[in-house]
Amino acid sequence: MAQKPSIPKGTRDFSPTEVAKRNYIIQTIKKHFEVYGFQPIETPSFENSETLMGKYGDEGDRLIFKILNSGDFISKVDDVTYSSKNSASLTPKITEKALRYDLTVPFARYVVMHQNEIDFPFKRYQIQPVWRADRPQKGRFREFYQCDADVVGAKSLLQEVEFVQLYDAVFTALGLKGTTIKINNRKVLSGIAEVIGAKHLLIDFTVALDKLDKIGEEGVKKEMLAKGISESAIDKASPLFAMSGSSMEQLEQLKSLLVESEIGMAGVAELDEITRNVEALGLQSAQLQLDVTLARGLNYYTGAIFEVSAPEDVKMGSIGGGGRYDDLTGIFGLKDISGVGISFGLDRIYLVMEELNLFPSSVSKSVDVLCVNFGNQESMAALKLVNQMRAKGIKAEVYPTNTKMQKQMKYANSRNIPYVVLIGAQELEQEQFVVKDMAQGTQQTYSLGNSEEFTEHL
Amino acid sequence: MAQKPSIPKGTRDFSPTEVAKRNYIIQTIKKHFEVYGFQPIETPSFENSETLMGKYGDEGDRLIFKILNSGDFISKVDDVTYSSKNSASLTPKITEKALRYDLTVPFARYVVMHQNEIDFPFKRYQIQPVWRADRPQKGRFREFYQCDADVVGAKSLLQEVEFVQLYDAVFTALGLKGTTIKINNRKVLSGIAEVIGAKHLLIDFTVALDKLDKIGEEGVKKEMLAKGISESAIDKASPLFAMSGSSMEQLEQLKSLLVESEIGMAGVAELDEITRNVEALGLQSAQLQLDVTLARGLNYYTGAIFEVSAPEDVKMGSIGGGGRYDDLTGIFGLKDISGVGISFGLDRIYLVMEELNLFPSSVSKSVDVLCVNFGNQESMAALKLVNQMRAKGIKAEVYPTNTKMQKQMKYANSRNIPYVVLIGAQELEQEQFVVKDMAQGTQQTYSLGNSEEFTEHL
Repeated sequence: MAQKPSIPKGTRDFSPTEVAKRNYIIQTIKKHFEVYGFQPIETPSFENSETLMGKYGDEGDRLIFKILNSGDFISKVDDVTYSSKNSASLTPKITEKALRYDLTVPFARYVVMHQNEIDFPFKRYQIQPVWRADRPQKGRFREFYQCDADVVGAKSLLQEVEFVQLYDAVFTALGLKGTTIKINNRKVLSGIAEVIGAKHLLIDFTVALDKLDKIGEEGVKKEMLAKGISESAIDKASPLFAMSGSSMEQLEQLKSLLVESEIGMAGVAELDEITRNVEALGLQSAQLQLDVTLARGLNYYTGAIFEVSAPEDVKMGSIGGGGRYDDLTGIFGLKDISGVGISFGLDRIYLVMEELNLFPSSVSKSVDVLCVNFGNQESMAALKLVNQMRAKGIKAEVYPTNTKMQKQMKYANSRNIPYVVLIGAQELEQEQFVVKDMAQGTQQTYSLGNSEEFTEHL
Repeated sequence: MAQKPSIPKGTRDFSPTEVAKRNYIIQTIKKHFEVYGFQPIETPSFENSETLMGKYGDEGDRLIFKILNSGDFISKVDDVTYSSKNSASLTPKITEKALRYDLTVPFARYVVMHQNEIDFPFKRYQIQPVWRADRPQKGRFREFYQCDADVVGAKSLLQEVEFVQLYDAVFTALGLKGTTIKINNRKVLSGIAEVIGAKHLLIDFTVALDKLDKIGEEGVKKEMLAKGISESAIDKASPLFAMSGSSMEQLEQLKSLLVESEIGMAGVAELDEITRNVEALGLQSAQLQLDVTLARGLNYYTGAIFEVSAPEDVKMGSIGGGGRYDDLTGIFGLKDISGVGISFGLDRIYLVMEELNLFPSSVSKSVDVLCVNFGNQESMAALKLVNQMRAKGIKAEVYPTNTKMQKQMKYANSRNIPYVVLIGAQELEQEQFVVKDMAQGTQQTYSLGNSEEFTEHL
């Protein structure tokens, strides 16, 4: 009868300490989203399959979790399809709903469905789990949270400037100093492909360029050649490998490379404006750095591209990213709505903060005060005292059962409870309570009628 | 190409105002869970099917959403099963995971899996969505939140007393005064069935009794007869229909009815202790009321049973419920762990609060300050000002684009933004900003170098 319980591969239970730490990050992000004027929305965990399918490429379609129809689902499958015994043909006949794969497509669907209730420009944030049938591996899960903020319906570059500041504000508040916000622009990448005569190979070109960090200049050139980019085109692009200096200096180098490309120069102008404005306003702990090799989500972004790296001394991929996409809602019939957004990578931020020991110790504190349980009558007095504390927002509890003192003290210790209150028969008679300071090892007596004398120090 | 977007039946999008209101309730519940010493855990949205199946009865099994296996799932179905074309036999072959149906079974699974890391007694809370393939109808959804707090590993009735106080504290904090916390005890119901000689018909007896509110005394008696409960048994039970007075008075009446039943008298003693202790400690705005007809979750609870009714002037089912169950984790192999818990019905609490207009107006405020966008240079000055406000926790934004003043003011109006800041060319030159108080219609000028003069009033 009894099962040995387990959870599905790629999913996680979160213990109280883990929840508290995750919430600390989420609340910090949320607070900043809100002071920056973003408003929360929530969408259902599952969408109609047709809302999601075909939006993330073939690989995405494969990784979307489908929900089996309820009831006698198989009776609705026609005999021809059934007799083929083919998973791909059967799937659409026996599933109508699928789990959210990201927050962007549901957001686009939301904007289109609710366009008449929304005041544009619409600044929304959304912090919800998503699910992907990825092969589970270290740091990659089948259920994980995304934390997204987007503005739709506003083309000005003020948004890009604000998103850089928002990244800086959040990471500064988390104590995560020394992050690098890398910025690029899809138009610059298009311009480069244009001037080197590889416009039709833009994606191959940028995918290769994106690997400069990992495989070096020679590796990138080799891959480009293999993809059919000519040697002369690669030669023309070679200034890219030698780009150096500050963002503004690199922009000057780009200008001379891209002078013949209208779209390329438009990208440079955007980067120039964003960079100048961010510099004028200043950042607290992050730095903004132009990175012409940055190409994430190329099929998707049309303007700015962002990616945030953890401080240099931590080995970790990007901890955030985003960009501008000119026609997000077009897939659902609402044309010409420009969007720009960023995302925070909760799981990776968590790992970085653990590694750098950045969680304040108060985050994982369970309760402030535990009252020892000495029996019915005593515990009622304890409950009365505890309720006075709770009304002041102090986390307090009475040990649930009247067991050995030693066991109760052990519980207080292992839960890191800083104060233990004792109300035994004698204290009850004298209308007093004793407070044991677990860190100091000291204890002090207070009057039950005047508990503020103790609580005012908490 | 363009699809007309929709969401699945029984699911909901939540707008910024709705999210804010839901969060107001959730945060209030959460804060009280924490001051009462409960700690949060989170479990995955989907569990292995065998963890959930068979735990909620046949009806429950039917209502659990199953997730289709990924990849070429159908190739793993043997030919015999496949040729039967039977949904019930196919389901376990093509699904291994299922969406969380409630928070109790995953909690039991969690406790068993993590028993060596947990300090018992374990007071946990969990606020997460669950999914049920119920027929969608008014107030019933396929995705909804549960807000549960439970204590496992403690048999003392102190827990029951604390849960009554916790209900009272939460509903008082929400401004929801006049709730009734109904209490009963499974042992009392068993005792009644025993003394009237209908022990083997306990469930039929209690299901009928539970309907007293709806179908009246005659209706209940008729149903009992139909279920095979004898006329003399029903006669013996008739004092139940005439129970009146305070909880303590009703307990006296129960005592004389149940004097012959050991289990019945044990139930009365528990109710007596809980009621006396709650009375001694006092409640702020709720009342505790014995209700011997209360029988929810009978197959499940073994001691106290709770249910909370909204204030009398609101027509709404229960807004919370819970009870004690003696062997929750036994299904996963960990015996003799007593649990007791309560749940808050978020959706119903929301509806009641809307009906009684209890949400503070501050909850649905979007941002505090909007700066009008007069163009690049002005908006950079605005951004500088806005950043000073944000650092103080004030929600502030610059209108994203430089459009007509009228459109920007309309946006401020429709979003209920209380203050609009103007920094035009002239203000910029004089290093000033103008604040328009949208409610009063007044405006005032401040120095850009001394924004505290304005913000200190917010």
